Amino acid sequence: MRRLHVRVYLLTALFAAGACGVLEGQSSSIVEHYRGVADRIIDAALADSSAYERLALLVDKFGHRFSGSDNLERALDWILEEMRRDGLENVRGEEVMVPHWVRGSESVELLQPRHRDLPMLGLGGSVGTPPEGVTAEVLVVSSFEGLEARRDQAEGKIVLFNVPFTTYGRTVQYRGRGAVAAARAGAVAALLRSVTPHSLQTPHTGAMGYSPGVRRIPFAAVTVEDAELLQRLQDRGERVVVRLKMEAQMLPDAPSRNVIAEVVGSEHPEEVVVLGGHIDSWDVGQGAMDDGGGSVAAWEAVRLIQRLGLRPRRTLRVVLWTNEEIGLRGGRAYRDAHGDEVQNHVLAMESDAGVFKPSGFGFSGSDEAFAIVAQVGRLLDRIEAGTVTRGGGGADIGPLMRAGVPGMGLRVEGSRYFWYHHTDADTIDKLDPREMALCVATMAVMVYVVADLPERLPRAN
Amino acid sequence: MRRLHVRVYLLTALFAAGACGVLEGQSSSIVEHYRGVADRIIDAALADSSAYERLALLVDKFGHRFSGSDNLERALDWILEEMRRDGLENVRGEEVMVPHWVRGSESVELLQPRHRDLPMLGLGGSVGTPPEGVTAEVLVVSSFEGLEARRDQAEGKIVLFNVPFTTYGRTVQYRGRGAVAAARAGAVAALLRSVTPHSLQTPHTGAMGYSPGVRRIPFAAVTVEDAELLQRLQDRGERVVVRLKMEAQMLPDAPSRNVIAEVVGSEHPEEVVVLGGHIDSWDVGQGAMDDGGGSVAAWEAVRLIQRLGLRPRRTLRVVLWTNEEIGLRGGRAYRDAHGDEVQNHVLAMESDAGVFKPSGFGFSGSDEAFAIVAQVGRLLDRIEAGTVTRGGGGADIGPLMRAGVPGMGLRVEGSRYFWYHHTDADTIDKLDPREMALCVATMAVMVYVVADLPERLPRAN
Repeated sequence: MRRLHVRVYLLTALFAAGACGVLEGQSSSIVEHYRGVADRIIDAALADSSAYERLALLVDKFGHRFSGSDNLERALDWILEEMRRDGLENVRGEEVMVPHWVRGSESVELLQPRHRDLPMLGLGGSVGTPPEGVTAEVLVVSSFEGLEARRDQAEGKIVLFNVPFTTYGRTVQYRGRGAVAAARAGAVAALLRSVTPHSLQTPHTGAMGYSPGVRRIPFAAVTVEDAELLQRLQDRGERVVVRLKMEAQMLPDAPSRNVIAEVVGSEHPEEVVVLGGHIDSWDVGQGAMDDGGGSVAAWEAVRLIQRLGLRPRRTLRVVLWTNEEIGLRGGRAYRDAHGDEVQNHVLAMESDAGVFKPSGFGFSGSDEAFAIVAQVGRLLDRIEAGTVTRGGGGADIGPLMRAGVPGMGLRVEGSRYFWYHHTDADTIDKLDPREMALCVATMAVMVYVVADLPERLPRAN
Repeated sequence: MRRLHVRVYLLTALFAAGACGVLEGQSSSIVEHYRGVADRIIDAALADSSAYERLALLVDKFGHRFSGSDNLERALDWILEEMRRDGLENVRGEEVMVPHWVRGSESVELLQPRHRDLPMLGLGGSVGTPPEGVTAEVLVVSSFEGLEARRDQAEGKIVLFNVPFTTYGRTVQYRGRGAVAAARAGAVAALLRSVTPHSLQTPHTGAMGYSPGVRRIPFAAVTVEDAELLQRLQDRGERVVVRLKMEAQMLPDAPSRNVIAEVVGSEHPEEVVVLGGHIDSWDVGQGAMDDGGGSVAAWEAVRLIQRLGLRPRRTLRVVLWTNEEIGLRGGRAYRDAHGDEVQNHVLAMESDAGVFKPSGFGFSGSDEAFAIVAQVGRLLDRIEAGTVTRGGGGADIGPLMRAGVPGMGLRVEGSRYFWYHHTDADTIDKLDPREMALCVATMAVMVYVVADLPERLPRAN
């Protein structure tokens, strides 16, 4: 804590002493020094709905943007063109080879005790079934422990994990590890209750995993409604039989790109504040919320700074990572491609929780850095977006964070996020133009100030 | 108002004078007299989840119950058996010929500016398309007036009514009259934004209408999301082309039944308090909310009274009407089949707004009758279900009400009703066992007391 106070004091002293020309006559704190520019940024962000309109144009024009798809690559081409037209600098795509899973045709039919087609989505990475499908009795369990307890009944069955949503982190484990657990118990396929607290017969997809040495069985999500139906049927002693058909297959890796654009720093162009979201989505809906919104908000934040004629001391770099949803190759490739430069990454910020009303940021880094970004947060209090809390980041910036870069995730009102997450209902109409503009303002103020501070944000050691 | 006070006074006086043997020693008001039995009914209704469990069994076993379907008739057979097993009296089905519309295979494909299959449901009663479908440019309008204003652009187009949900009454007019308005403007087909305030890419079906002399064009609902997508595309000047395919057709009328069961009155068996819901549903979801819930709650209310050994002065008759959704033949047939007996119908009650937490009833009838049922409502205050307001009834009891029978509709918390209404998401899990038990209690107390009052509920004249 002592070092922390010294560092904040030094920064303040730098301003007070007018250490830099631009600072002369400014007041003594970060907040006072940047109040004017922050207000300009906020006012400009809220003056129109350009972020929302750009996102609408993107998602309406190209739809979802799944790794390996033409949609994604055509969307990236368009974004690169638009970024150049915006006048951003060093606009480029950095090639990344990404997994190319294709869903194909798929279905779950309830055959007994009565016939019904169940809405479903195969889980990303799953193997397919034989053309005639896999037909078997269903064993419904509500936890890994429940499966363990009925292990002797699982052989040759299709195991359904009917796990009610608690938190995403807890519930999503069944998507990640369900196929392996079911296969170990002798199941021929697995089904998952969609990971969501709210459903209108809405299947949710997402990535699943296999383990070396464990048989790869097909794995698909059904809806909350149907998981509960099958549970009730089993509880009444009915024999439940379904037929699962999936054409899913993994094709050879396909080329994609991380999209990059910059406002080059005026004093330390080699020092970088990176911000972004993932531009790939699932192969359903429009990927408007997850994570077209975060991607476009980051892009707009940088464009706004450029449009206002602002050029911070350090370089601002927006990165739209590819392949977050099924492989995370974009985040890894970025870190690998930027090798030594990562040492000069001052901050990495991600928005991947939807662009609903922002409340601030979660931050992972040193206490000293936290104290500084918390001060910057004060500039966002007028839009109720200034709360910076401990812990936060994002999947795409994870590789940078593990390399020592301070990480920051935009926090937003999250009550409906998992209603739409990985579904056909992840569409632009779920977002609000003003809330998205608030996200742009919030990200822009934070990255501009951090990129412009006299001293770079201190790392942990 | 004078007559009203006199009548309530007389009823009160009847109790006070101990005009009937059973009333001796009871206090002087309706409320005081029936407090004990009402509490017994409420306590028994809330003691278990038998209504919910019976509904779950019904909807899980048979699924949706569409007019003309085997599902519906098999469900009716099962209900009749169960009612006999319950020990109810005069259990019977009264035959009704019902319209038999079948959906068949159907689709809406967006062809331009890009390809996408749009989730959809044909509207009940619509004609089909030729096998190759109807392919045309889309004209999006947001009101009948908007269509009128662009009438010169509608010829040969598919008109989409993109009407945001305000109230059901206002918005559903576009489902009722949209095809006629579009055909009059020269359209070759029509699409409707689903009638709902909340969507997860959820199409809502429902009945539509044609007019004599106006060309019958096919009519289908798309989701809120896609209606807004097509609106945005049109607003940007894009040419929007879709292909609508529907195999929908109207088959010859099919036999169905109104299901009836009674607790016969001890003093005036010829006087009837009728209560019920409609047992048919749309051909999607489980029809659990609309109106399996109302049907089973009414059935359970009568069964509860019978199980408690209560036998009111007048006959309690539960009627599960058929064919409310697409024809209303059940309600009409009931009135017609019961001819002169309708004069002896003291009250008709319907539950068709979902079996969510009840607040009381809406009532249509004379001021004198209103004053009496409002007093009965006081017996329900302990479960917050005692508010009786002016105006109310139900579609199935409409023919009785037009013949002079006082009508009453159960009122419930309605915030989510139209989320599920006429969709695949109308499933049992949307209901709550205790809320449904409260509906049973509310209906049971009201019908028992009205059936048992010394004097029959006064009519309007």
